[in-house]
Amino acid sequence: MKTDANQPIGVFDSGVGGLTVLKHLIQEMPDEQFVYLGDTARVPYGNKSKQTIEHYTIQCIDFLLGFNVKAIVIACNTASALALEIAQKHSPIPIIGMIEPAAHYAIESSLSGNIGIIGTRATIHSQAYEKAIQTYADTIHKEAHITSIACPLFVPIVEEDWVNHPAALLIAKEYLSPLISKKIDTLVLGCTHYPLLKELITNILPDITLIDCGYTASKIMTKMLGIHSNQDSSSISKRIQLFTTDTVHSFNVIAERCLGFTLQDPINITTEVLEHHPSEYAKQSASVKY
Amino acid sequence: MKTDANQPIGVFDSGVGGLTVLKHLIQEMPDEQFVYLGDTARVPYGNKSKQTIEHYTIQCIDFLLGFNVKAIVIACNTASALALEIAQKHSPIPIIGMIEPAAHYAIESSLSGNIGIIGTRATIHSQAYEKAIQTYADTIHKEAHITSIACPLFVPIVEEDWVNHPAALLIAKEYLSPLISKKIDTLVLGCTHYPLLKELITNILPDITLIDCGYTASKIMTKMLGIHSNQDSSSISKRIQLFTTDTVHSFNVIAERCLGFTLQDPINITTEVLEHHPSEYAKQSASVKY
Repeated sequence: MKTDANQPIGVFDSGVGGLTVLKHLIQEMPDEQFVYLGDTARVPYGNKSKQTIEHYTIQCIDFLLGFNVKAIVIACNTASALALEIAQKHSPIPIIGMIEPAAHYAIESSLSGNIGIIGTRATIHSQAYEKAIQTYADTIHKEAHITSIACPLFVPIVEEDWVNHPAALLIAKEYLSPLISKKIDTLVLGCTHYPLLKELITNILPDITLIDCGYTASKIMTKMLGIHSNQDSSSISKRIQLFTTDTVHSFNVIAERCLGFTLQDPINITTEVLEHHPSEYAKQSASVKY
Repeated sequence: MKTDANQPIGVFDSGVGGLTVLKHLIQEMPDEQFVYLGDTARVPYGNKSKQTIEHYTIQCIDFLLGFNVKAIVIACNTASALALEIAQKHSPIPIIGMIEPAAHYAIESSLSGNIGIIGTRATIHSQAYEKAIQTYADTIHKEAHITSIACPLFVPIVEEDWVNHPAALLIAKEYLSPLISKKIDTLVLGCTHYPLLKELITNILPDITLIDCGYTASKIMTKMLGIHSNQDSSSISKRIQLFTTDTVHSFNVIAERCLGFTLQDPINITTEVLEHHPSEYAKQSASVKY
């Protein structure tokens, strides 16, 4: 695929968790420009219906399309599971989600074929990961035995910064114990917040390969765009434009935890912008660089 | 205040937690009709900004005004704390929130004046309860020593139905321990979900008066409307019209837990309705009785 270096890459997430995905995109493609939209006024998507998630996703995609992006990453696992298809049909440019890349890496990584998936209730209920893993396993004639578990308390635990609290360990034990008896050797972290729980998860499930969806998606995106970069990512923060639909308490603390460096505060747009003419925002806004 | 028995009372909440408030309203006013709107597509409000909460609240108030309601209860503590004033200015009919009634009852109930408040981050950060309690205490020349604690994990714990899980006890201990040393004798449950945690809270803080905002608001509303009722509430479910902005997983399980009886499934409206002409929905919809 031929790409224009002046066109940014769009990243959409329901909140700020997608910054863990942005981190990997930056590491893989340090020369690129990024426009990130976090729909923080309507976060979380994880317990909402397919219809509502599709409705919100299309609005966010339209917002990013207004920036003349060359490709979009849906960093939110819930939106990837429930709205990728409609987003891809709607968009003239390539969109990748979290599911397919992680599913491929999970199958490639697993020796036993015993694979676990953890995610929000909506992601797990959609069975998107199970279907993607099974389809790929069938294609390459491998066996796959999949166990999926919804972990709705993991996101609030991360957001409360209680990752090291004894309650977090109890909660993780309750959710993850069934995976021990299933003898999984690979676990898909099916939510952008979960990479921040790696240590906690490894406590309960040692010697397991953890699949970080941000990492796998960034590998696929880099390949798809044919991008080869030798630069380091030290000056990248200048080329990231951030938008959120609501102000975020301690945004820079979260950004630093996810990215390893701070960013300028995001520009706030309202949900009214998204409900009305999202694709026209970029043209009309004087504060936008692209 | 003169009221028309044919006009319903509006109840607005960010989600389904407000059903705990509706329960008390029904108990106090079993002859009345109710229209309940839960903004489940944008729930929770608890970590969102004042600006966004005001924006959403006005839309929800407009939606209820379309039903010719005679009064509105804002059952969401966060919206009460951050958007009651703007809602009252905006509305031609009386609106009561959760804060004032609970603040009065807390002062009346407390012997020592040592009062605790628990709520979402936005509610606690707003200091709305502290100000209301202090103002009322000053008015009646009582002393008040207030301790406020944000408990963001309590709502997810209730929604996961883990109220009796050992992790819930650890979380509650962490949040509530500071209240033990403050020797509070009264605790305001500043979130609609918290009455479902009464037993857990009493474990850590025995012999404390718990102020249930739904109860105190329903007492004030009944007085304000001058309603005297001798009927029981056995046939009330026929006179409750429910709306949500998103479908709700296990709605009837939650309704039964909050109300003690099941209801017909709510009618789903979209957030587009709220962002555009919310007050016209009732007129245009054939499915609406009022």
